[in-house]
Amino acid sequence: MKVEIIAIGDEILLGQVDNSNAGWMARAMTREGFNVQHMSVIPDDREAILGAFQKAYHRSDITLITGGLGPTHDDLTKALLAKFFNLPLVFRTDLLEQVREAYKRQQLSFVETSREQADFPEGATPLRNVHGTAPGIWVEREGRVFVAMPGVPIEMQGIMQQGVIPRVRKLRSGKVVLTRTLHLLGLLEAELYEKLDNRDDILQHAKLAFLPGVGSVRLRLTVEAASFEEAGMELDKAERLIQEKVNRWIVGKGDDFTLAEGVGKLLKSRHLMLTAAESCTGGWLAKLCVDVPGSSDWFERGFVTYTNEAKHEMLGVPWELLEKHGAVSAEVVQAMAEGALKKSRAQVALAITGIAGPTGGTDVKPVGLVYIGYADQEKTTFIKQQFDGNRKTNRQRSITAAFKLLIDQVLAEG
Amino acid sequence: MKVEIIAIGDEILLGQVDNSNAGWMARAMTREGFNVQHMSVIPDDREAILGAFQKAYHRSDITLITGGLGPTHDDLTKALLAKFFNLPLVFRTDLLEQVREAYKRQQLSFVETSREQADFPEGATPLRNVHGTAPGIWVEREGRVFVAMPGVPIEMQGIMQQGVIPRVRKLRSGKVVLTRTLHLLGLLEAELYEKLDNRDDILQHAKLAFLPGVGSVRLRLTVEAASFEEAGMELDKAERLIQEKVNRWIVGKGDDFTLAEGVGKLLKSRHLMLTAAESCTGGWLAKLCVDVPGSSDWFERGFVTYTNEAKHEMLGVPWELLEKHGAVSAEVVQAMAEGALKKSRAQVALAITGIAGPTGGTDVKPVGLVYIGYADQEKTTFIKQQFDGNRKTNRQRSITAAFKLLIDQVLAEG
Repeated sequence: MKVEIIAIGDEILLGQVDNSNAGWMARAMTREGFNVQHMSVIPDDREAILGAFQKAYHRSDITLITGGLGPTHDDLTKALLAKFFNLPLVFRTDLLEQVREAYKRQQLSFVETSREQADFPEGATPLRNVHGTAPGIWVEREGRVFVAMPGVPIEMQGIMQQGVIPRVRKLRSGKVVLTRTLHLLGLLEAELYEKLDNRDDILQHAKLAFLPGVGSVRLRLTVEAASFEEAGMELDKAERLIQEKVNRWIVGKGDDFTLAEGVGKLLKSRHLMLTAAESCTGGWLAKLCVDVPGSSDWFERGFVTYTNEAKHEMLGVPWELLEKHGAVSAEVVQAMAEGALKKSRAQVALAITGIAGPTGGTDVKPVGLVYIGYADQEKTTFIKQQFDGNRKTNRQRSITAAFKLLIDQVLAEG
Repeated sequence: MKVEIIAIGDEILLGQVDNSNAGWMARAMTREGFNVQHMSVIPDDREAILGAFQKAYHRSDITLITGGLGPTHDDLTKALLAKFFNLPLVFRTDLLEQVREAYKRQQLSFVETSREQADFPEGATPLRNVHGTAPGIWVEREGRVFVAMPGVPIEMQGIMQQGVIPRVRKLRSGKVVLTRTLHLLGLLEAELYEKLDNRDDILQHAKLAFLPGVGSVRLRLTVEAASFEEAGMELDKAERLIQEKVNRWIVGKGDDFTLAEGVGKLLKSRHLMLTAAESCTGGWLAKLCVDVPGSSDWFERGFVTYTNEAKHEMLGVPWELLEKHGAVSAEVVQAMAEGALKKSRAQVALAITGIAGPTGGTDVKPVGLVYIGYADQEKTTFIKQQFDGNRKTNRQRSITAAFKLLIDQVLAEG
């Protein structure tokens, strides 16, 4: 069954708000075996909205719409959805009660403008919004489904989980499409392509897609089959053929996999706790660890030592090293890693110091130069990297490189 | 002039890669006075791609395409663009040289598969890709422009900045559309709407849009005028009318504005340095500060104290407090803020401790309970918040609340 996702909002077309909702909904629908075929973003404009509804009605089985359900004058979705399906708006006291409750739950006083949110297309089904005031709108006609939801991510997610997913499951029919993603570190896309010289065999079982990322590549397998079981078996066969060629570069599996999650699993299996001392990445590596639920099992503490004083006082990096070699140096990054180990209860430590940019570079130490240190009870080591990105990507790639160093070192212990 | 943005890639439709490129390109084109009217994501499929090219050719002046330019079999963009415009692919030795150079720059050995990247549509203009191997493709016909770029963000950004923006500037014609965004903290969308009871006056000068966020609202003003000067004057008039009503809630202005940036400006103007002690946010607040170039002027150091041991050892939080009140308590968050102040060289400190979820909640201390502490040389204070989101949004809103507490406290000093 074909799914289409439409986001309504000038703010997205102006680039002021990222349309992260589309990706979230796509993941949710893909997991349920649906096939997302089209995503679009259109302006808060009557003609554009009605035109998009028309196209979606003809080409898609399920159309998921976000945005334009708020209480202000640029919110057109509800009125136009009612018009498109020729449903009059009626005032529903049960919905007004829910809106009032939503205000109460958030300890806010009711605003009169919000009364309008109780106007609802007759014959449509309201979907409860536990995180906000505007309910979702479910309209079904001639086997086509339209669902309108607010653009605030957590409100959309609540409505999807509690209202939309259970309902679309009942509609599911036809072939099953399943995907599986393998995450590889330390290979370029073209290298991976070359190493997988058994592609023809793999393609007997699954479609293959190569997704390059920052310092990593993902391989996506897709199977269309008559049943979930059959699709799963084909995926297993394809995966085994891939493992034969590139198993040592595979670090994880699954749609929601993050590198930090893989690191966490590895550390937990070895009963190791991690600490991190960060200069240019400024707590980002720690944040990615703490993003993972249950990270207290393997992430112990973090030091954000952006200044030399902090490096000296928090980690015990000697002033002589800082003065002689500079904060961005092999000597200092190793002292940072060793210091983090000493000043924590962790068994392994990562340290990052570099020149992220846009300023601060010199001829000898240009923007993008990053040192990454690793220490455990046995040894200390480091790598030097020269990235050519911007402030954000240089820091991102530093973190990826640090996680990779950690994985290599921990795996090398056997 | 109308701009359309197309992303090609199954990985986006599956939700495995977020289409952050679209937002970046939209911001870049909006700043140049262009009007982005449509964004879409389509699969790696011949018919879908040609169909999208056809629609874009008819409705848009400039079409920006990302994705599908890599060296593997699912990369169709170049071949289909050549077919659409009826241009034969020719092998260009100058482009092969550039591809070889790109490999050398990244200290990689040349992969034979990459030879294909030197095949190029005859009559199209290659746009240099300084961060990767595949050049961008610029095709102009009958006043329509198509540009194809790789999907890797930094590669696309480099091609946009150096190749696309200078070229589209020369094409610019017709009316100028300018926007301005005001950032407000501490007001709900509906409250803001009510307070702005001079909307009719404002609308004489600019279109208004309300963009609700996590703990904040943005107001976007849009003006269409004959010249940049005129548009700027109209924006100024509209902004003054808004200031009359809600000036005290406005914390910043501009498209790229982040709350951390506003905090940084405020601290720098007062010659204050900030330190942060983070439990559930795990370094995220520090990371957002260090995201801002030049943050070493106002962000001093950060403590990621996820465990009780770390809170005690790094910040000096007494064991008695941790045992008697628990790590998530008013007493502990204040001790964390005071400890961070004492163990750093900063003049103001923020501390965050809470139960982010999904597990770890109890009846007395449910998931979403967060304490936020503030300390300076004069005083210590805290706020208690009960959020109803998920692990990510609870932590996000904690950080927003912490920044807001800091702004209030620093402003209160006068």
